[in-house]
Amino acid sequence: MTERSILLLPGDGIGPEIMSEVKALISHMNEKDGANFKTDEGLVGGSAYDAHGQAISDGDMEKALAADAVLFGAVGGPKWDDVPYDVRPEAGLLRLRKDMALFANLRPAICYPALSNSSSLRPEVVEGLDILIVRELTGGVYFGEPKTITDLGNGQKRAIDTQVYETYEIERIAGVAFEMARARGNKVCSMEKRNVMKSGVLWNDVVTATHKAKYDDVELSHMLADAGGMQLVRWPKQFDVIVTDNLFGDMLSDVAAMLTGSLGMLPSASLGAPDEKTGARKALYEPVHGSAPDIAGKGIANPIAMFASFAMCLRYSFNMIAESERLEKAIATVLDSGVRTGDIMSDGCTQITTTQMGEAIRKAY
Amino acid sequence: MTERSILLLPGDGIGPEIMSEVKALISHMNEKDGANFKTDEGLVGGSAYDAHGQAISDGDMEKALAADAVLFGAVGGPKWDDVPYDVRPEAGLLRLRKDMALFANLRPAICYPALSNSSSLRPEVVEGLDILIVRELTGGVYFGEPKTITDLGNGQKRAIDTQVYETYEIERIAGVAFEMARARGNKVCSMEKRNVMKSGVLWNDVVTATHKAKYDDVELSHMLADAGGMQLVRWPKQFDVIVTDNLFGDMLSDVAAMLTGSLGMLPSASLGAPDEKTGARKALYEPVHGSAPDIAGKGIANPIAMFASFAMCLRYSFNMIAESERLEKAIATVLDSGVRTGDIMSDGCTQITTTQMGEAIRKAY
Ligand SMILES: CC(C)[C@H](C(=O)O)[C@@H](O)C(=O)O
Ligand SMILES: CC(C)[C@H](C(=O)O)[C@@H](O)C(=O)O
Repeated sequence: MTERSILLLPGDGIGPEIMSEVKALISHMNEKDGANFKTDEGLVGGSAYDAHGQAISDGDMEKALAADAVLFGAVGGPKWDDVPYDVRPEAGLLRLRKDMALFANLRPAICYPALSNSSSLRPEVVEGLDILIVRELTGGVYFGEPKTITDLGNGQKRAIDTQVYETYEIERIAGVAFEMARARGNKVCSMEKRNVMKSGVLWNDVVTATHKAKYDDVELSHMLADAGGMQLVRWPKQFDVIVTDNLFGDMLSDVAAMLTGSLGMLPSASLGAPDEKTGARKALYEPVHGSAPDIAGKGIANPIAMFASFAMCLRYSFNMIAESERLEKAIATVLDSGVRTGDIMSDGCTQITTTQMGEAIRKAY
Repeated sequence: MTERSILLLPGDGIGPEIMSEVKALISHMNEKDGANFKTDEGLVGGSAYDAHGQAISDGDMEKALAADAVLFGAVGGPKWDDVPYDVRPEAGLLRLRKDMALFANLRPAICYPALSNSSSLRPEVVEGLDILIVRELTGGVYFGEPKTITDLGNGQKRAIDTQVYETYEIERIAGVAFEMARARGNKVCSMEKRNVMKSGVLWNDVVTATHKAKYDDVELSHMLADAGGMQLVRWPKQFDVIVTDNLFGDMLSDVAAMLTGSLGMLPSASLGAPDEKTGARKALYEPVHGSAPDIAGKGIANPIAMFASFAMCLRYSFNMIAESERLEKAIATVLDSGVRTGDIMSDGCTQITTTQMGEAIRKAY
């Protein structure tokens, strides 16, 4: 069987703790199922900065480009609040996204039935919620130039960020959203601020044209991004797939994740374009939550989002659909059994550690 | 008594219906209390476009600049979806904000006790909620240049929007936020994306420096804007005053408004700098909700946000604190009496029309 190469980038904070649980599952799959994963490890974020002054080294970047898939933990923490802008922890993640050309970020916001009571929303608003946010990830204000701070004298500075989108960038992310919708509820809602931003005007035009040309079997609607934020709070179940740009996607997917009450549980996949010859896509998988420096090192972090990210990896990078579903089912089974890490603890459940949760999931797998 | 001049710009959709209820209150105050308001009226948005091809005419713009205060209804609707970008309905509002230099947008998100059950959030999460979003309104990506769409040939276009902030712009909006906080819960949370945007880095630096120099009696915290969106959904009562830029403010204030379940009830004030001689500020007051074209002309729109906006006008433009409080109390009294417009209707209440709600509020005033 062909070797499947995965680069593990645990990062900072709780990253290493949750990654090590998934690592144990990977070993288990190699030993028991002959899965033939070959893992390597690298540094990213603050830990990479501490080791060699960059948020990711060129060597680790090369490994990421060569791997079939990258599993990413989380980056950042107060320790690195004052490092120079270009080498701040997030720069490592942004470089991975850009250099691997991971333009399509898939963020499912699902409400685990066992957790619908931990949402701040009324249970009937979130029960059974299952939406997918498709966020453009290599364009927009994250990468546009100029991106500068200029000293104007007299104590005045001017900061500039530039939002840039070209037709092809919008077309390809819209394509991903429509394809995803076909395999789900067949509805796409596109969000932008065309009433204020020229990039919103182009976004709206290109999504509309792409729909007409290739995907008119899918139901398409448009919403202003601010109204979209409102509607997510009001009645999120009206949505199936949401497609939006890099910055709006950042905001809206965080709001959507929090709605579910399952923030510590939500994975994401960042995909590149399929290779013209092999069809393989570069890909990185990471939890939606951050590095949670306040609980790092205590062994109490919730590893479920990391496992769920690995489940997306099995599906999208290795086409191991059965294994992916088995892992997702294992997570649900463990939750149904009433064990919880501290972040999702509730009355009548048993609180367990990161390691215990990892063991439980591997056992249920 | 000096004359108090108000320009009414009802706009489109339900704008004229809700404005006419407030107009009746203004007449009432002139007749009964000798308030000496002098109102004039103008066109803005689609109705201005229909009349003279611009989203606001130069003549009405001059009236706005000359008035002590502007009351604004709402703009936009499907009828004008395809008018050229520069004369779209929103352009009228944006021109008013820019030409009147209304840099400080105050958006209170309060949960009316009578309505805590109409929120999609659990009652305990929103009951008693009272936060104030202070949004920068004349800078950022709304107005930065270049703002263009360029044809690149081969069916490709490039759209650019530019986020620009200078030190003085951040300083003055931070000042407003700290002043407001002193009169409330004494806490400010500043939100930006300094991990991705240079304008976020400058924003953070300037807010921090302003705090240190003049407002260190106020408690200041910082949050990334995406995390801020999450925290608004998770536990909004942790906030007192939130200060943020134009685009993040647009998104976050809409999310905050929807949390309260009182969207049709929420007002906003947009203020300029105090005049160096007179201390007077240019100001525009408008509901947070939009023009609701689907229910326009039916006489069922909720005029409360428009009344609440006028209450802010009494306070901030005319220093009529007693009258402002009296009006706010009248709104609460009417709600307590159990009458509702359709948008906030619930079991056991009596549904009434726009006009009936207007009458009830004027009577309770
Ligand atoms: C860490 C940060 C740079 C990142 C982003 O803004 O994209 C994060 O918020 C995310 O959503 O993945
Ligand atoms: C109508 C539109 C231009 C406006 C904005 O984006 O500022 C609105 O959403 C608001 O929040 O006042």
